[in-house]
Amino acid sequence: MFITFEGPDGAGKTSVLNQLIPELKAHLKRPVTLTREPGGAVISEAIREIILNPDYTAMDARTEALLYAASRRQHLVEVILPALTRDEVVICDRFVDSSVAYQGGGRQIGEAAVLAMNQFATDGIEPTLTIYLDVPVAVGLARIEAHRKATQYDRLDQESIAFHERVSAAYQRLVADNPERITAIDATQSLDAVVADCLQLFKTKLADIWED
Amino acid sequence: MFITFEGPDGAGKTSVLNQLIPELKAHLKRPVTLTREPGGAVISEAIREIILNPDYTAMDARTEALLYAASRRQHLVEVILPALTRDEVVICDRFVDSSVAYQGGGRQIGEAAVLAMNQFATDGIEPTLTIYLDVPVAVGLARIEAHRKATQYDRLDQESIAFHERVSAAYQRLVADNPERITAIDATQSLDAVVADCLQLFKTKLADIWED
Repeated sequence: MFITFEGPDGAGKTSVLNQLIPELKAHLKRPVTLTREPGGAVISEAIREIILNPDYTAMDARTEALLYAASRRQHLVEVILPALTRDEVVICDRFVDSSVAYQGGGRQIGEAAVLAMNQFATDGIEPTLTIYLDVPVAVGLARIEAHRKATQYDRLDQESIAFHERVSAAYQRLVADNPERITAIDATQSLDAVVADCLQLFKTKLADIWED
Repeated sequence: MFITFEGPDGAGKTSVLNQLIPELKAHLKRPVTLTREPGGAVISEAIREIILNPDYTAMDARTEALLYAASRRQHLVEVILPALTRDEVVICDRFVDSSVAYQGGGRQIGEAAVLAMNQFATDGIEPTLTIYLDVPVAVGLARIEAHRKATQYDRLDQESIAFHERVSAAYQRLVADNPERITAIDATQSLDAVVADCLQLFKTKLADIWED
């Protein structure tokens, strides 16, 4: 049971997951593991330091996409797969869809090419279920501005609004193309309402391991 | 004019290139650039440090292949493409074929999968000409043993003979499958004889920019 959360910047993933995870732990009959890349995998951490280094302005978009995929692969092998083997419910904050949207769409390398390259990284492993927290670009960016701290600044923040619009459009295509796997939830609602929608979805999709 | 040199460990690439490059500079009507990944590209260097870190024994084979491709991409963009744009003859010590042989064949990820992933990295750019220095595995490994210094030890040296046999077999398949691009040269010959064979090949293939 491998579940991913996706969404543009400012969709509220972190807040939603902080409130959702204790509820899931209370209701699911299996252990719940929340993770996000690099997730403590030392090699993935080292790769992330390269990706986020603000001095590396010469980094090519394909280099960046390959580094994300490398970090993802190592996190998958060291963290996600062992937890799945222990029969845990693994919830991952961002996965392949993020690269398709950000590198494929946002950086215009091509969504199909980024997906194929990531399938090399995952060896074809796909989430059972993906929740897409859907907010318009303007709403997401306004939320980020409100919460920004100077110390959180890194290379990836130096993006234009046009970039975020392309990311959002790529996400919309992913949602449309993967109706079985991805469920979009309206993330312009209040935090409580978004969490309630997520819980309802989990109750439906994971009915056999859910207890009230 | 993009030319690559390939071969298993101990094929003598470095010695051949050291002797060959001054000859090429004397005979070719265009500037000659010799490079090898990471080739001074700062981001590629940082990626290489992760690949070669002897502490990272947990590194998955696909992670390694993705990191090589990321390093290659950045070196291509920062070093090779600008030199080609300046109409130089670029000679690169190892390129995609090395990943197909070492990661695809040696680490058994699959040669076709590693090739496809690398085509994402190169965006389809291929060498005009590739010289494969051909030596039996036992000859190559014996040469390495003879020249090994304790300080040169890294994670990649910890490989079995079976690994090197698989690398060699993958290289043989590349040579067989790419007769137009790859020329194999018998590297069990004396260094002078190998260099002479290479020069003869260059004279034939680059006839229009060669002067005696």
